[in-house]
Amino acid sequence: MDNRYIEEIIELLRNGTTDEIRRGIMDYHPYEVSEALVEMSEAERAKFYSVFQGKDISAIMGYLDIEDLVLFFEEMKPRYIVNIIQDLDIDDAVDVMQALPEEDRAAYLKLMTQDNQSKIRSLLKYQEDTAGSIMTTEYIEIDMEDSVEQAMKKLIAQAVDAETISTLYVTDSKNVLVGTLSLREIILARKGQVIKDIMNARIISVPSTMDQEEVAAIFKDYDFTSLPVVDKLSRMLGIITIDDIVDVIDEEAVEDYSRLAAVSDVDIDSENETIWMSAKKRLPWLLVLSILGFATSTIIAQFETTLAAVPTIALFMPMILGMAGNTGTQALAVTVRGLNNNEFDSKNEIGRHLLRELGTGLLNGVIIGVILFAVTYGFLAISQNANAFSITQAVSLAIMVSLTVSTFAGALIPIVINSFKVDPAVASGPFVTMVVDILAISVYFTLATVLIINTL
Amino acid sequence: MDNRYIEEIIELLRNGTTDEIRRGIMDYHPYEVSEALVEMSEAERAKFYSVFQGKDISAIMGYLDIEDLVLFFEEMKPRYIVNIIQDLDIDDAVDVMQALPEEDRAAYLKLMTQDNQSKIRSLLKYQEDTAGSIMTTEYIEIDMEDSVEQAMKKLIAQAVDAETISTLYVTDSKNVLVGTLSLREIILARKGQVIKDIMNARIISVPSTMDQEEVAAIFKDYDFTSLPVVDKLSRMLGIITIDDIVDVIDEEAVEDYSRLAAVSDVDIDSENETIWMSAKKRLPWLLVLSILGFATSTIIAQFETTLAAVPTIALFMPMILGMAGNTGTQALAVTVRGLNNNEFDSKNEIGRHLLRELGTGLLNGVIIGVILFAVTYGFLAISQNANAFSITQAVSLAIMVSLTVSTFAGALIPIVINSFKVDPAVASGPFVTMVVDILAISVYFTLATVLIINTL
Repeated sequence: MDNRYIEEIIELLRNGTTDEIRRGIMDYHPYEVSEALVEMSEAERAKFYSVFQGKDISAIMGYLDIEDLVLFFEEMKPRYIVNIIQDLDIDDAVDVMQALPEEDRAAYLKLMTQDNQSKIRSLLKYQEDTAGSIMTTEYIEIDMEDSVEQAMKKLIAQAVDAETISTLYVTDSKNVLVGTLSLREIILARKGQVIKDIMNARIISVPSTMDQEEVAAIFKDYDFTSLPVVDKLSRMLGIITIDDIVDVIDEEAVEDYSRLAAVSDVDIDSENETIWMSAKKRLPWLLVLSILGFATSTIIAQFETTLAAVPTIALFMPMILGMAGNTGTQALAVTVRGLNNNEFDSKNEIGRHLLRELGTGLLNGVIIGVILFAVTYGFLAISQNANAFSITQAVSLAIMVSLTVSTFAGALIPIVINSFKVDPAVASGPFVTMVVDILAISVYFTLATVLIINTL
Repeated sequence: MDNRYIEEIIELLRNGTTDEIRRGIMDYHPYEVSEALVEMSEAERAKFYSVFQGKDISAIMGYLDIEDLVLFFEEMKPRYIVNIIQDLDIDDAVDVMQALPEEDRAAYLKLMTQDNQSKIRSLLKYQEDTAGSIMTTEYIEIDMEDSVEQAMKKLIAQAVDAETISTLYVTDSKNVLVGTLSLREIILARKGQVIKDIMNARIISVPSTMDQEEVAAIFKDYDFTSLPVVDKLSRMLGIITIDDIVDVIDEEAVEDYSRLAAVSDVDIDSENETIWMSAKKRLPWLLVLSILGFATSTIIAQFETTLAAVPTIALFMPMILGMAGNTGTQALAVTVRGLNNNEFDSKNEIGRHLLRELGTGLLNGVIIGVILFAVTYGFLAISQNANAFSITQAVSLAIMVSLTVSTFAGALIPIVINSFKVDPAVASGPFVTMVVDILAISVYFTLATVLIINTL
């Protein structure tokens, strides 16, 4: 979509009367206004704050990246900030509070209504990236003994604040979740029926401690749009809605992509990202890999006499290393993805996967090896190289062996790392690179020494 | 979550009476039953089909991967298949039809009710991966002239089939979308009010031709849970719901991840994937890269005399190439991600990004280059290498230059490819690898020749 609306909104703010601004800007979607806010000058934002407050501004601020929102807070009075936070959806409010420096958080909490204070405090205690940290306490709760009419009344009473009204959560007198009822079902229900007779008693819920990645997987599998969160006694704590899950899925995907690219975070703030910021995201990997690089140097050093005798073998080093690295990364990516999708839960599945990867590596190794035999020989024959045939042998054999081993290593390493409860996406990359490089180099030079030097 | 339910369901099917099976299995979530179906033997599935039909079976089949579902169709009678398809959500039904061979599709269509035939035909005409292809025609439509009571009646009448009832779509007499109304709003509305007076007249809709990736971006930005699809005259065609968008987001993420890993698809069917299947997914890239590899061989060949004179320089080739390749991939990933998020829409933003990448490459190059100067010199000093100092100079200078250039190339290439309306995630990888390798090798050997040979 084009974003002409940004200019329109800023235009309106610059030249409109307070009244025109209010009416005009409220015609835009809050997300669009939030986009415009980021583009405004501080002076323009100041004017904006003077025109809007309460629910209106919260609806808009709810669409900002938390970093931006916290930045804008520095332009506002505490009271104004607290009102914004209080009017946000409770789960968003908690996210914002979490992003604030300790002292601000305490100060703002004091300024809030008792009710909001306790609500936010109770949610703040959940660990980051757990079900508890992304749930909301604004859901519709009815009693199993309610009649359809009573339930409807409760629904209407709670509808304004609730984050979703498509599902009603049914609890008993001890607040234990005993069932769910879709809005569709209650609308179609006959008057006088009692909730416990029409509710769905088979509930799928998650503990507040479950990792958000696992929660996201459940949403994807079951096609849920919301999911209840319960405590150890299966008492209702809150619900997670799909809009928050969409963010989780996105985060996790970007994380894996970043790891594979050896960057701490591929997402850049193209407006404000400095060179130093983006350099910092990449340096750690480069440092590790540059030092690992000397492992290969050390190995090659052992074969310097071979190199001196037949410098030609150096010509194919980059190609062999590149191919080995590629097959390693391919196997790594496939395996990491499989681990994330819980494809390898049993020893059995792991064994099958490793065997398949070994076979895949061997198959690709043979195919590429045969092709490269022809190409390499042609390449060397043209330049009338004396050792054309034996070098060609070394190259294609090295490809076959190192592709096989590299593929296997690329699959094995993440599985091993994962078994130590470390995220394989984070740790596997450099390991695979080093192992694969060392293997490929050793194989190639050993073969070269045996096949070429000994035939000189 | 553990999946004990799979064994439980199969157990039930093996040993239960028809009645026990029906009641027992309906206690599980359809998704869980669909998981069990995949694990069953053909005979067990046959028994399953004999027990269940109609809506029950469709609810279950709706959770299967389309590939599996089409596979199972071969075990069923056409009538049975058609009933399943007709009971699916209309958008899922269309997805299934699309996956069927032309002749089956025609045959099954004939067996459907007139109504379903025309519905499905009308949806089949939309191109894959467009808004039209993922929308459903099962939504709740009310008239702008309706009273709240009339609207409520329509709501209740359409509620059973509708995919979402949280939003009602308001049209005029010409079926033009003129507004939306949330279920929440209509529940809270006063009796007697007319819809056009309480509806939200500012609509955000998408054309049926919009790419699904773009649609997904809108869902993420605006936090929508559903979005209307209209034709050129903004007449209502259907709606897209977030559950389908979750799949799109997932698909796209996996696609980019696969491309970066140089695999056609990182997702494997761990149950049934054969070695040949997974080899095929990786071979194309390996073939391309192996041939590109000879580009580097050709360049090194130009420097064979240098190599012969000082074989030591070969020791650092892998490290330099590895580092250059890594920085190239880092810049590539960051840039592809930025392009997907429409971060670089203006010449201005592109320029800023390229400059930043150039700076990032230079900064990393200098830092790593300085560090490697020390390490390399130490490494060579230990082995009392005669040309320790000049080789060290060549290595660290080569690192500085090639890291700078590689980072820039990694950012520039996807932007250029994207400007040709080609998906940069697909095409950039091999290009970057080749360019980066050639640059790094040339720089290193030129420096080596100048700094070492000329000082011999």
